[in-house]
Amino acid sequence: MSEDIRKNFASDNVTPVCSEVMEALSRVNHGGVPSYGEDTFSKTLKTRFGEVFEAEVEVFPVATGTAANSLALSAMVAPHGGILCDQSAHINSDEGGAPEFFTHGAKLVGIPSAQGQMDPATLPSTLVQNAEKGILAPPFQALSLTQATEWGTTYSCDALSQLSSTAHEHGLTVHLDGARLGNAIAHLGCSPAETTWKAGVDVLSFGGTKAGAMAAEAVVFFLNDRTRPLLNAMPHLRKRAGHTWSKHRFLSAQLLALLDNELWLTNAHHANMMSQRLVQALKRHPAAHLPFATESNEVFAVLPHPLLQELHDEGYHFYHYPTPEGVPGQLVRFVTSFYTRPDDIDALIDSLTA
Amino acid sequence: MSEDIRKNFASDNVTPVCSEVMEALSRVNHGGVPSYGEDTFSKTLKTRFGEVFEAEVEVFPVATGTAANSLALSAMVAPHGGILCDQSAHINSDEGGAPEFFTHGAKLVGIPSAQGQMDPATLPSTLVQNAEKGILAPPFQALSLTQATEWGTTYSCDALSQLSSTAHEHGLTVHLDGARLGNAIAHLGCSPAETTWKAGVDVLSFGGTKAGAMAAEAVVFFLNDRTRPLLNAMPHLRKRAGHTWSKHRFLSAQLLALLDNELWLTNAHHANMMSQRLVQALKRHPAAHLPFATESNEVFAVLPHPLLQELHDEGYHFYHYPTPEGVPGQLVRFVTSFYTRPDDIDALIDSLTA
Amino acid sequence: MSEDIRKNFASDNVTPVCSEVMEALSRVNHGGVPSYGEDTFSKTLKTRFGEVFEAEVEVFPVATGTAANSLALSAMVAPHGGILCDQSAHINSDEGGAPEFFTHGAKLVGIPSAQGQMDPATLPSTLVQNAEKGILAPPFQALSLTQATEWGTTYSCDALSQLSSTAHEHGLTVHLDGARLGNAIAHLGCSPAETTWKAGVDVLSFGGTKAGAMAAEAVVFFLNDRTRPLLNAMPHLRKRAGHTWSKHRFLSAQLLALLDNELWLTNAHHANMMSQRLVQALKRHPAAHLPFATESNEVFAVLPHPLLQELHDEGYHFYHYPTPEGVPGQLVRFVTSFYTRPDDIDALIDSLTA
Amino acid sequence: MSEDIRKNFASDNVTPVCSEVMEALSRVNHGGVPSYGEDTFSKTLKTRFGEVFEAEVEVFPVATGTAANSLALSAMVAPHGGILCDQSAHINSDEGGAPEFFTHGAKLVGIPSAQGQMDPATLPSTLVQNAEKGILAPPFQALSLTQATEWGTTYSCDALSQLSSTAHEHGLTVHLDGARLGNAIAHLGCSPAETTWKAGVDVLSFGGTKAGAMAAEAVVFFLNDRTRPLLNAMPHLRKRAGHTWSKHRFLSAQLLALLDNELWLTNAHHANMMSQRLVQALKRHPAAHLPFATESNEVFAVLPHPLLQELHDEGYHFYHYPTPEGVPGQLVRFVTSFYTRPDDIDALIDSLTA
Repeated sequence: MSEDIRKNFASDNVTPVCSEVMEALSRVNHGGVPSYGEDTFSKTLKTRFGEVFEAEVEVFPVATGTAANSLALSAMVAPHGGILCDQSAHINSDEGGAPEFFTHGAKLVGIPSAQGQMDPATLPSTLVQNAEKGILAPPFQALSLTQATEWGTTYSCDALSQLSSTAHEHGLTVHLDGARLGNAIAHLGCSPAETTWKAGVDVLSFGGTKAGAMAAEAVVFFLNDRTRPLLNAMPHLRKRAGHTWSKHRFLSAQLLALLDNELWLTNAHHANMMSQRLVQALKRHPAAHLPFATESNEVFAVLPHPLLQELHDEGYHFYHYPTPEGVPGQLVRFVTSFYTRPDDIDALIDSLTA
Repeated sequence: MSEDIRKNFASDNVTPVCSEVMEALSRVNHGGVPSYGEDTFSKTLKTRFGEVFEAEVEVFPVATGTAANSLALSAMVAPHGGILCDQSAHINSDEGGAPEFFTHGAKLVGIPSAQGQMDPATLPSTLVQNAEKGILAPPFQALSLTQATEWGTTYSCDALSQLSSTAHEHGLTVHLDGARLGNAIAHLGCSPAETTWKAGVDVLSFGGTKAGAMAAEAVVFFLNDRTRPLLNAMPHLRKRAGHTWSKHRFLSAQLLALLDNELWLTNAHHANMMSQRLVQALKRHPAAHLPFATESNEVFAVLPHPLLQELHDEGYHFYHYPTPEGVPGQLVRFVTSFYTRPDDIDALIDSLTA
Repeated sequence: MSEDIRKNFASDNVTPVCSEVMEALSRVNHGGVPSYGEDTFSKTLKTRFGEVFEAEVEVFPVATGTAANSLALSAMVAPHGGILCDQSAHINSDEGGAPEFFTHGAKLVGIPSAQGQMDPATLPSTLVQNAEKGILAPPFQALSLTQATEWGTTYSCDALSQLSSTAHEHGLTVHLDGARLGNAIAHLGCSPAETTWKAGVDVLSFGGTKAGAMAAEAVVFFLNDRTRPLLNAMPHLRKRAGHTWSKHRFLSAQLLALLDNELWLTNAHHANMMSQRLVQALKRHPAAHLPFATESNEVFAVLPHPLLQELHDEGYHFYHYPTPEGVPGQLVRFVTSFYTRPDDIDALIDSLTA
Repeated sequence: MSEDIRKNFASDNVTPVCSEVMEALSRVNHGGVPSYGEDTFSKTLKTRFGEVFEAEVEVFPVATGTAANSLALSAMVAPHGGILCDQSAHINSDEGGAPEFFTHGAKLVGIPSAQGQMDPATLPSTLVQNAEKGILAPPFQALSLTQATEWGTTYSCDALSQLSSTAHEHGLTVHLDGARLGNAIAHLGCSPAETTWKAGVDVLSFGGTKAGAMAAEAVVFFLNDRTRPLLNAMPHLRKRAGHTWSKHRFLSAQLLALLDNELWLTNAHHANMMSQRLVQALKRHPAAHLPFATESNEVFAVLPHPLLQELHDEGYHFYHYPTPEGVPGQLVRFVTSFYTRPDDIDALIDSLTA
C-alpha cells in the first residue's frame, strides 16, 4: 500500500499527530513525576473536562478507542448482562470482539436501522420483550449510542434524550461512543454538554486520536446516581486491562492539548468543511449517489466500479462496503480530517469528474 | 507528592522519555500512512528485532508492560490452563489481575523463593505433582520467568536453560518477562540471544518504557515448533484487548529508536552503573543491610526507620516493602535509570551518611 | 401456574422421567464405585454411543442442554473467535448468554432465516465477508446448526452436508444442537449416523432430558482430524464448569437407558405422532394458520386471541411468541413428548374446535 | 480399579444414593410441572432451608459442589476482585480452576496454615497489606472458609465469628464451603444457624451429594444488607453456567429429602462415628501418626509404605497426599460416609493391624 500522504481517505486514523499535541508531549517531557496518573498533568484532566462539559466528571484516559468503549461498557454491565446498540455500531461490528472480552461475554444485541440510528419509537418494546424472556436472555444493562454514527449521520439532541430517557426508565445506563463527537458537535452547533449528559448520556468515550492525538481517548463519567457506584471499579478495570500507562503524563498531555483553545472542535470543524466540499461535488456528479446525509467527516457514496478503479489506480485509498443487491455501483467511504487540505479535496474531485 | 526531579527513586517509570525516542516520534510524524501496523515503520520492526536477537521473530508492540506480559500469556495458555512462576513475579503480584483477565482465568501458581528465582532442582517435582491431580488442577501450560528478577537479581543463562528445558519436557512453553532485560544483559555481559531463545525462552516481553520509551513494549515470539502455532491468534488477541494502536507508527518508532545503536543497552548499562554507585556506599554503611545481590538497576536495602524518615523529609521517593519479622529496619528499594546522574546518587549517599 | 398434568404443552421439559430411566437409576445404586466417570457404567457410554452412531466417538455427559451446547462450543472456538448460527438458534436466543460465558466471549452471529434453517447458498459469502474484516471481526471458528430446528422443521441430510462442507472448507468445525435430534431422525427416517457425522457434523449435543431422562445430555465428538485436537481439553473444561458429577454413574445410567432398545427414538417417534395428530386437526381448523412445516414434536400455529384465552382459562399451558405485524392472531407453540397421550391431544383438539 | 463396595475409602463421593433420596425422586416423578424451578417442590425449598437454618434465606440448587462454590463466589466477587482463603481450600486446590472460570478470573489468594484453618490473628494485616497495593493487587471482596476443613478439622463458632467480623469490617462478604457442613455440625454439637449466619457467614455452599444425594448442592444466601444486593444476578448466573435444570423438581427433591427428619445430620453423625472408630484404632497403632485432629469424617494418617502397599493389594482405596520431607511414611486419607458400616471399619482395622 502506497503512503501518498494526500490521497489517503481511508480513515481519520491514517493521519499524523497535530502539531499542538506533539508540542504538548515535549513540554511535559522533563523530570521525574509520579507514575500511573498521580502526576499534576493527569490531575488537571478532570478539571479541564469538567469545564468543557460543564459537569462534574471523572476521567480515565486510555490509548485506543476500542479500549475506551470496552472499558466503559465493562464498568456499566455485568458479565451476565446485555448491551443494546445499533447493528452498525463500532462496538458490534469493528472492534474484534473487544466489548465481549472486556465485559466477560456480556451479550451485544445490534438492532438493524436505516441510517445507523436507533429508533426512539421502538426501543420500549425491544426492552420489554427482552425482559419477558427472564433467565433465557441476558438482561439489558446498557444502551450504547454512537455520535456521529457509523454512517456519518448525527442524532439530534432530542433523539438522544428520548432514547436515554427510555433506557433510564428500564434501568439501563447510557453510553455514548464519541470517537467523532467533535464532528457531531461541529455539525449540530450545540455544546458538548447538550449532546452528552444533558441528553441523558451517563458515560462517554471521548475520541482524541482521530481528532489529532497520537493515541489518546478518555472514558468520561458524568457523575450522577447511576454512575457514582461504577467509579470504584474503574482504576482496577483499567489496570487489569493493561491500559494504565506508567508514564501517564504523556497520555494526559495529549488530551489537554486537544481541549486547549477548543482544538478538538476546531479540528473537527475543519474536517467537516472538507467533507462538505466533497459532498457538494458529489451531489452534482451524475453517477454518484449519496445514501446518507453527510453530517460529520465521513462521506458515503455509491459510485460506478470503473470510476473507483481509476481512483484506485491513481493511488487513492478509501474503504469499500458491502453494497445492497440491485444498487448500481459500489458503496465507498471517504473520510476527511484536520489534516485534509482543500487542495486534497479538489484533486479528488478532479479525479472523480475527469 | 512532590515532583522533585532528582530525588525520585521510586521506579524507573517515573522518568521522562529519552531524547532519542522523542526525536523518533517527531521524525515519523508526517503524512497519511496505513493504520494498525501496516505502515513501513512497523513492518521494519520484525527485521530489526530479528537482527538484535539473531533469530527469526514475530513482534507485537503494545503500550504497557502489563499488556505485554498478559497478552503473551494469553497466547500461550488456554483459559483452563495453569501458569507457573516465582511468587514474587510481577504477573503474580503487581499487575492487578491482568494475566487472569487476559487468559480468562488461567491459574497463576507462584512458588516461594529466596531471591526471586525459581529453582531448577525442584521444578520437575512441582510439574509432576500438578499433573497427577488430573482434572482437579489446571494443567500447567507455561512457565514464566523474570529477567532481571523482581528482587534485582539475574538468572544465569545456565539456570534459564535448565528451567526451560524442564518446562519443554513437560509440554510447557517458556515466557520471559523482560521489563528489565537490558539491565540483566548489561550485568551478565551476554548477548540478547544468549539470555533468551538460546536459553530456551519461547516468548519475550521486551521492556521499552523503563528503558527510555514513552509507552512501548513488545511481545517477541522466537519462532520454533512451539511458538508457530500461537501466532495466528495474536493479531486478534491484541485488537480484542484494545492494544492495537490505529496510529501504529508511533508505537513502532519508539521501539526502533531503542534498538538503534543499542540505545536500550546503553541506557541499561548506565542505570546499572548508578545502582552500583549506590551499592558501594551502602556496603560501607554501618546500619544498612543488602539482602540481595544487586545485579540490575534495583537496589534493595534494609535501613533504620529514622534514617528513612529523614530521607522522606528531604523529598526522596522510594518504595517500602513488607519486612520480615525480626529484621531491624525497613526493606526499601531505590531504582536507577538512564536518567539518573552520578550527582543524584552522590546526593542520596550524602543524605544516607549524613 | 397450575400443574394439571395433561394440559401442559409448554415444553417437552415439563414432563416426568420415563420409567426405563428411573429403573436404570435404581439399578446402578449400589456399592462404592470410582467417582468422576471412572466407573464401569460411564466407561460403557463411549462404546454404546459408538454403536448407535456407527462411529468412533468420545462422550462427555452433562446435566443440561445449555451446558452441552456451551461446553461443546468452548472446545471448538477460542475466546477471540466467532460462532455462526441461525438467528433463532437456542444458543443465540434462549440460553441466557451461556455460550458467551463458556467460550469467554466468543461472538455469536445469528443470521436471519425464514424457517430456522441456514441457507447453504449464502453461507460462503457470509464467511468470506467476515474474513475480509481481518482483526476488526472475530474469525468464525464454528458453525452451529440445530436439528430439529427451533421452528420445528428439520434439515435434510443434503442441506446439512452442504453447510458442513462449506464450513470445513473455510476452516470451521461443525456443531449440531441435537436437543431434539431423535425427533428429527424419526421424521427423516434416516440413521443417527446419516444426520450427524456422515453429513459433516463434528460435535453433537445429544439431547436426553427432553427424550425422557431426568437431567442428562451428552457432548459427542465424532473422531476425525478436526476433533481429535479438541479432546485433551474437554475433561478440564467440563470440570472447570462444575459439570463433572462426582457420582457420575447416575448421569451415565440415564443415557444408557435411553440408548437401550432405541428408547430415545421410540419416545421421539411417539412425540412426533402426537404432534401430527394435532397438526391434522389444525389444518382443518378455519381460524388456524400453520406457518412452518411440522417435522418434529413442536407445533407452531397462529390462532385467534379469544380462542387462546379460552384454552388458557381451561388450564392449558403453551408458549406465546412475538407475532409479526399484520398477522391476525397470536403465534403459539404446542410441544408434545413421550408422555403425551392421544387422549390429551384429542381433548386439546376438542377445546380448539368447540 | 476394582469396585469392591466395602473397601473404598477414597472419598464420600464414591457412595451410592441413600434410599430416602431415591424414594423422594420417585415420589415427584409424575405429571407435567413447570420447568426451571417454578414447580411446587422447588418453591418449598426456600421455606424448608429457612426453617432448618432459622433464618430468611434464598436457595439456588445445583448438581455439584464445584458449581455451588464457584457460583456463590461469582455472585460475591467482581472479576477484578480477590478471594482470600486457606491454601488448602478446595476452591484453591481441587476444583480445576472453576472459581476462576465462574468469577472471570478473580484472584484466589491461598494463605498457608497448619490445620487448614485461617488464623483470625493475622487476617487483619493480610487485608491491610493487600489494600495498600492499590491497583497493583485485586481488591479482596470475599473471604472463603471451609467447614469442616480440608484436613478434617472444624472451626469453632468463635473462630468463624472472629474471621467473619474482620472480613465484614474490611468490606468483604463471607462464604462458607459446607461440602461437609453436616459433619462439622455433628462434631461441634451446635445448630446449623450457629456455625453459619450467627457466626457471620453470608453465603453457604450446602453439601448434599456427600451426605447422601445423587447430585444436589445448594447455594444458600442468608439475607442481610450485604447479600440482598447479590440476589438479582443469581438466576441469571446459574442459567448462564448451564446449572438450571429444566426438570428442576428432581434437584429440589433430593435436598428436601436430606432436610426431612434431619437426614443430612443423621448421615453425618454416622459417618463421624465411623471415622472415630478408625481413629481409636490408629491411635493405638504403633506405626501410625495422626497429624490432625479428626473432627469430621476424614481421617488423615501417616502410615508406613509397606503397610499401605498391603492395604492396596487387598483392594482398599484411599488417597495419597504429598508428605513433608523427613516424615517416615506416607500421608493418606480415609473417608467414611453414611454408607460405611462398623464392619467395614473393623475389617480395615484388622488389615491395618494384621
